[in-house]
Amino acid sequence: MIRYNDLAGKKIGRIEALSDGVFAIALTLLVLEIKVPERPVHSEAELFSLFLSLSPKFLSYFLSFMTMGIFWNGQAVQLSYMKTYDRNLTWNALFFLLLVSLLPFTTAFLGQYTQYRFALLLYWCNILLLGLVLYLHWQYASKKQFIALDAGAFPTIDKAVRSRIVIAQVLYLAGALLCFIHVYLSMAFIILVQLNYAFAIISGKGIQKKKD
Amino acid sequence: MIRYNDLAGKKIGRIEALSDGVFAIALTLLVLEIKVPERPVHSEAELFSLFLSLSPKFLSYFLSFMTMGIFWNGQAVQLSYMKTYDRNLTWNALFFLLLVSLLPFTTAFLGQYTQYRFALLLYWCNILLLGLVLYLHWQYASKKQFIALDAGAFPTIDKAVRSRIVIAQVLYLAGALLCFIHVYLSMAFIILVQLNYAFAIISGKGIQKKKD
Amino acid sequence: MIRYNDLAGKKIGRIEALSDGVFAIALTLLVLEIKVPERPVHSEAELFSLFLSLSPKFLSYFLSFMTMGIFWNGQAVQLSYMKTYDRNLTWNALFFLLLVSLLPFTTAFLGQYTQYRFALLLYWCNILLLGLVLYLHWQYASKKQFIALDAGAFPTIDKAVRSRIVIAQVLYLAGALLCFIHVYLSMAFIILVQLNYAFAIISGKGIQKKKD
Amino acid sequence: MIRYNDLAGKKIGRIEALSDGVFAIALTLLVLEIKVPERPVHSEAELFSLFLSLSPKFLSYFLSFMTMGIFWNGQAVQLSYMKTYDRNLTWNALFFLLLVSLLPFTTAFLGQYTQYRFALLLYWCNILLLGLVLYLHWQYASKKQFIALDAGAFPTIDKAVRSRIVIAQVLYLAGALLCFIHVYLSMAFIILVQLNYAFAIISGKGIQKKKD
Repeated sequence: MIRYNDLAGKKIGRIEALSDGVFAIALTLLVLEIKVPERPVHSEAELFSLFLSLSPKFLSYFLSFMTMGIFWNGQAVQLSYMKTYDRNLTWNALFFLLLVSLLPFTTAFLGQYTQYRFALLLYWCNILLLGLVLYLHWQYASKKQFIALDAGAFPTIDKAVRSRIVIAQVLYLAGALLCFIHVYLSMAFIILVQLNYAFAIISGKGIQKKKD
Repeated sequence: MIRYNDLAGKKIGRIEALSDGVFAIALTLLVLEIKVPERPVHSEAELFSLFLSLSPKFLSYFLSFMTMGIFWNGQAVQLSYMKTYDRNLTWNALFFLLLVSLLPFTTAFLGQYTQYRFALLLYWCNILLLGLVLYLHWQYASKKQFIALDAGAFPTIDKAVRSRIVIAQVLYLAGALLCFIHVYLSMAFIILVQLNYAFAIISGKGIQKKKD
Repeated sequence: MIRYNDLAGKKIGRIEALSDGVFAIALTLLVLEIKVPERPVHSEAELFSLFLSLSPKFLSYFLSFMTMGIFWNGQAVQLSYMKTYDRNLTWNALFFLLLVSLLPFTTAFLGQYTQYRFALLLYWCNILLLGLVLYLHWQYASKKQFIALDAGAFPTIDKAVRSRIVIAQVLYLAGALLCFIHVYLSMAFIILVQLNYAFAIISGKGIQKKKD
Repeated sequence: MIRYNDLAGKKIGRIEALSDGVFAIALTLLVLEIKVPERPVHSEAELFSLFLSLSPKFLSYFLSFMTMGIFWNGQAVQLSYMKTYDRNLTWNALFFLLLVSLLPFTTAFLGQYTQYRFALLLYWCNILLLGLVLYLHWQYASKKQFIALDAGAFPTIDKAVRSRIVIAQVLYLAGALLCFIHVYLSMAFIILVQLNYAFAIISGKGIQKKKD
């Protein structure tokens, strides 16, 4: 019985390594889209404006990178609390990685067709599914008692992990709904939410505080 | 002697890391094929139908992802039971990875020439070889007594690992033979088999049950 | 409290694995640019000159590889001294990886527009930001007492890590300023600085010496 | 002093992870070259001959995969015997990885210009440098006493590692020299040498035997 737990513990390491590989590729996929232009230029100013013409691709890359950073962290936190793992969780994680590797596509699609609601809703749909799969990941692991926390510490962290996902997804939904007013408003709101999660990280400290 | 086992144990970690790398790339190779179309569109409906036109590539991606998930799991389970490893197993694993990295090609080939038996048989051939190499991996490791299981637990898990591969391959063969009736029937059957292995995972629980 | 440190310790492993993945891809991105020409040739001499025509791409690849090797080492050394990690450091590391994955672009941009100051300043800007983010990584970790060194050993290694970054960045700045005399002079100087850091590694030994 | 060894030990893990990443990418780079043809076909036979027309690319891929497997194993064995590591070894390893990532290029170059001696000598040059850098890796580590073997076991394994590289490189040189008789003879000989190292692995058993 102890032996089996050890083996399963090792499997978490495998899913972590596979995730790091898929994220590493997904994180750099959109860079591949930024090709150095081979147009001849005749002055510094011309080269500068050529570079500026690439800025939508850089913005798109930055947005995609930030979103993936958020979900990489989200998955990493959950995995760091798990003491064991099973095949259902593995397939949940694989489906999560499938959605991660689609993110560069939906981001580029949004970058190409910014003025259309469909492009925005597709992008939002990708983020929604990522959140949903991640929520089910935690939900299933809690139910099966795979979380390596004693009865005292569990409720606090359980609540922190769940509410983080729910609040983020409510904000994304609100952002998505804004597209019925104007698509750019919707985009701006979603980007602000992501900037908040990337730069003003609150949940990490939150768990620590509640523990004291 | 103990020292040598330690060193060999480390090598399993290396083959696991290399496998995770190759799988991570193979898992995302077909995403690279899904390019954002740069055609001008004039309405939401037009954009939606443009997106729908990409659906065969998404299906092909999903199929390839699922197949690779199945074989990643299959290899992970075997590696998790091994206490040592040698060069013959390493080359078996490398050949396995070669077949893994060919899977995006044979999947895309099938996606391009769906109506031809040859495309289907090529795809099946790839899956057959993956199963065969994985079977030999376990076969060799059992014979050399590289499996980290005592005499009591070994037969149950040995049988579970072997029968899983054999049953799956018999089903794939049946699917492949259906192509002499109709290629699409054959494809549908193989996809169903893979959906079954991805979503109704039975072997994990099976091992657990037989242990009790 | 001890439990939390264990979990956080694991997270350093994740950021290391993600970094290795991103670096591995970034290290090989510029190789993808070196395509085998498909022009017909009629003699050994013609093939040789065809190969020589690719040499700027090989040089560009070598330069990019060397720069990335330097920053990979720089990050690896910092991470190897850390006993714990938090979300702020994780986002610092993610931003570092974003800059790493932009390096193949700025290098190729410089390779394409060698005679322009703007291309050189863009490349320098990338290196400057890499250095800055890495400096802040150490700065933050020291302030939060995340460094796994006792009070005796800390000052020596702290000084070595900081001065390494500062001296390198001063040299890069000097190189960048040379572009107002001539762009090629500037490039040559920066390449020499990088060759020095790649081949005449002094900081590793420096730390050892000061300890004795 | 013990603390420093621990930190350095961790660095071997980093170089292993980076190597696995670069090898995983290099192993799959040539697959990216095998594009599914989009030509319309009208019969099974036509599709089969279209597939056959891709066979030089498959052979080239197989050759490159095999060569990389050999060097991945070679490096893995050396790393598995090392107890510590320094910056000079790290840069040796980085240069090794640079040569690894060039291998898909030199292989494809040989595949494109098979009838020219220059293409074959370039390919051989890549293999020669890989062997040389790997030899220096071991040479430096032995001199610095980084090898985790006691005085009794060291000479046997030291001799096995060195002679493996030297014999292989002598065989490759012999193969390369054959190109002055005929390029195809040279290629065939080198492929046979690599097939031998991939399938009839002798050094692993060799070490074991000498130990008894």
